[in-house]
Amino acid sequence: MDFAPPPDSLAALTIALREFAAERDWDAFHNPKNLVMALSVEVAELMEHFQWLPAAAAADLPAASKAQVRDELADVLLYLVRLADKLDVELVTAGYDKIQKNALKYPADKARGSMRKYTEL
Amino acid sequence: MDFAPPPDSLAALTIALREFAAERDWDAFHNPKNLVMALSVEVAELMEHFQWLPAAAAADLPAASKAQVRDELADVLLYLVRLADKLDVELVTAGYDKIQKNALKYPADKARGSMRKYTEL
Amino acid sequence: MDFAPPPDSLAALTIALREFAAERDWDAFHNPKNLVMALSVEVAELMEHFQWLPAAAAADLPAASKAQVRDELADVLLYLVRLADKLDVELVTAGYDKIQKNALKYPADKARGSMRKYTEL
Amino acid sequence: MDFAPPPDSLAALTIALREFAAERDWDAFHNPKNLVMALSVEVAELMEHFQWLPAAAAADLPAASKAQVRDELADVLLYLVRLADKLDVELVTAGYDKIQKNALKYPADKARGSMRKYTEL
Repeated sequence: MDFAPPPDSLAALTIALREFAAERDWDAFHNPKNLVMALSVEVAELMEHFQWLPAAAAADLPAASKAQVRDELADVLLYLVRLADKLDVELVTAGYDKIQKNALKYPADKARGSMRKYTEL
Repeated sequence: MDFAPPPDSLAALTIALREFAAERDWDAFHNPKNLVMALSVEVAELMEHFQWLPAAAAADLPAASKAQVRDELADVLLYLVRLADKLDVELVTAGYDKIQKNALKYPADKARGSMRKYTEL
Repeated sequence: MDFAPPPDSLAALTIALREFAAERDWDAFHNPKNLVMALSVEVAELMEHFQWLPAAAAADLPAASKAQVRDELADVLLYLVRLADKLDVELVTAGYDKIQKNALKYPADKARGSMRKYTEL
Repeated sequence: MDFAPPPDSLAALTIALREFAAERDWDAFHNPKNLVMALSVEVAELMEHFQWLPAAAAADLPAASKAQVRDELADVLLYLVRLADKLDVELVTAGYDKIQKNALKYPADKARGSMRKYTEL
């Protein structure tokens, strides 16, 4: 019996991206310095959809924008996964570790309803 | 028999972040416009570690930087997951869809060893 | 008779920054690739002040934020001037040239009250 | 006798941009929150030209890229000037003030040949 990789797994996505880059000889370009720049560029392409909108409209995009925004979110994910791979970071584990740190820095009773920095709570 | 979500599931992480925000009444701040700004700020905090390094050194960070870089990668992931949640985008599926689009735009035999845009291949 | 450079001259600022870098042997670090990363990081430090604020509050910052925002704006200017110097671009002339291009892309009667892209006007 | 504004003056450029926005009724969109997003997007469009290049090639762009890079530098300047105007900051003065702060944080004899943060010198 065979198991497909869980559809939601970043480990499987990491491997897919390794193969994609290998087939195109792109590894020489994919150093962390270049990848963090590419990541930043993709975030800006995402941001462009929101820059002139009031906050309320930004939460309710027209359908054409939605499809583009989905692609831009995907691009951000792909470069983030690729960068984490090159830096030997297991992203989701790092994410949960960071949530725990944030829970200590921002205890619910102190941080409630405020976006002040933890140093100012 | 019970299945745990895969430990690297973004669906599970999405729920953890919803709870984290709810406990702190942060939903009012977490509109897409604000979240894309926060995402951009976290990418810049990641970038700061690489800005003055030669590409080779950027691939081989000292241990102290590595721990910070891991935290910054995590922050990028957390805001990306949170933003995708608010925009109703299933990130990993969107990622695989984008890989397929990229495979058409960048056929391996044409794109090999080059970072030119697909419009210039 | 002698003329001082206008106090808001970018040409004079460019020379001040050249001297600052030369005194510290920083030219080897100040290649365009590194400088555009530094510029991006400074813009994010500026953005951080606005990310959680409603648009109205963002236009009326408390005094403590104002002093920091002024410093961040200055940092953005300094890296922008330094980068333009390395790329042999005369910034203010380039700025006026771009305004003229924009005036053709966004004629006042068509663009009035809208932030749509010129391709969609 | 008449004096033209110095061609290099940001004060004159600030006024030109005010008029440009007023003629198009764009002031309602040009709040600091939106403008800092637009500034960030323009920096990314500039960064895109450098992301895959080795540092040496980034310092010696082909002519076609050079013209585009000049336009992107101009866009960054225009949004920076517009944002500073909305925040009542005199950019060049703020720039010189920041250079003085930096000179104290990075004394030439300590900072020579190093990009370490001033807190680590």
